[in-house]
Amino acid sequence: MKTKTAGVVALLATILIAMACNTAQKSSAEAVLENIRTRTSIRQYTSEPLKEAEIETLLKAGMAAPSGKNTQPWSFVVVTDSETRTSLVTKGVNRMYAEAPCLIVVCGETTMLRRPADAPADAPEEEMPNPNWSIDCSAATENILLAAHALGLGAVWTACWPYEDRYAPVKDILGIPEKIMPLAIIPVGHPAEFPVPKDKWKPERIHRERW
Amino acid sequence: MKTKTAGVVALLATILIAMACNTAQKSSAEAVLENIRTRTSIRQYTSEPLKEAEIETLLKAGMAAPSGKNTQPWSFVVVTDSETRTSLVTKGVNRMYAEAPCLIVVCGETTMLRRPADAPADAPEEEMPNPNWSIDCSAATENILLAAHALGLGAVWTACWPYEDRYAPVKDILGIPEKIMPLAIIPVGHPAEFPVPKDKWKPERIHRERW
Repeated sequence: MKTKTAGVVALLATILIAMACNTAQKSSAEAVLENIRTRTSIRQYTSEPLKEAEIETLLKAGMAAPSGKNTQPWSFVVVTDSETRTSLVTKGVNRMYAEAPCLIVVCGETTMLRRPADAPADAPEEEMPNPNWSIDCSAATENILLAAHALGLGAVWTACWPYEDRYAPVKDILGIPEKIMPLAIIPVGHPAEFPVPKDKWKPERIHRERW
Repeated sequence: MKTKTAGVVALLATILIAMACNTAQKSSAEAVLENIRTRTSIRQYTSEPLKEAEIETLLKAGMAAPSGKNTQPWSFVVVTDSETRTSLVTKGVNRMYAEAPCLIVVCGETTMLRRPADAPADAPEEEMPNPNWSIDCSAATENILLAAHALGLGAVWTACWPYEDRYAPVKDILGIPEKIMPLAIIPVGHPAEFPVPKDKWKPERIHRERW
């Protein structure tokens, strides 16, 4: 009888564990979709710094983005120094730069080596504008925001390019080379606010087969 | 004794379930990061069409993207009609348009209503260029690619804007209004190829504190 009871309990336990594992498996896709759905801009942070491993995870996510012809035109400046962060605050906007323990400045290489369109196949490559750099760097920025949310961190996309009054001081303060353009600054920290994500679903924005 | 054994087994079961749940919880972040890491461009699809629910999930992910001043400048044209898809193939490139069961054309509103910079506070808003539309629509495109991968679908980002030879025929064929610009076309289907994701991790692209 003892063995029988133990057997029944073990069976029940096995079923429950199997159910838990099944939920876990199913929720892999759901976890991704929920993370996309619930990510929202966080502009208030605690003073707790980010761990190096967290910063690396965010940058890995950024570099996993797709890019036109796989050019990967991105670079990142990670700023944790309080004085530098504070100096990036312009005109009282973007106080988050001073308050977030970490900033990730997403930069793009605005030129690329390629053969001019009408040149013969054996012509040398020349340095030409990369028309796709801001698009590719935007995908990288979104990946970082999604990864931050997954880690329980709070972040917000603040724009640099194409606003000269924003990118010019950033280039100057961080010593960013001429051909490199900061697209966005992402303040990241542990959230000190928990806003409800906006519901942005608008079926009227969907057209079928043609506009 | 019977009760005691059952108690021990129940305790063990509880511990195992708790461990399973903990793994499930932990893997929620890991699922997101792995999805970002393993997403890759898929250019070969089976003939199986997408379910309506899948299309809606992809569009919901797109509309969940962040946007400058929350303008949400995106609209989407979903094309499943084979003839329309085939007509979008230009110069033999982008054969995926004909082969994927579904195309999502990510479009952006290139203008927005706002008050001119130097106008008084009570001045009426005017239709002005939206400098952020392509950035916002890029974030929406990346969200759709990540959601597709999470659902086990295959997709690839193909560029329209800023390449006139690509966006002009798309606008023409789909009847897209003058002020709306197609940024990208995403062919989506069930994958018929399983390429290994590229490792794009480049620590040399990271700068600390300044460039």
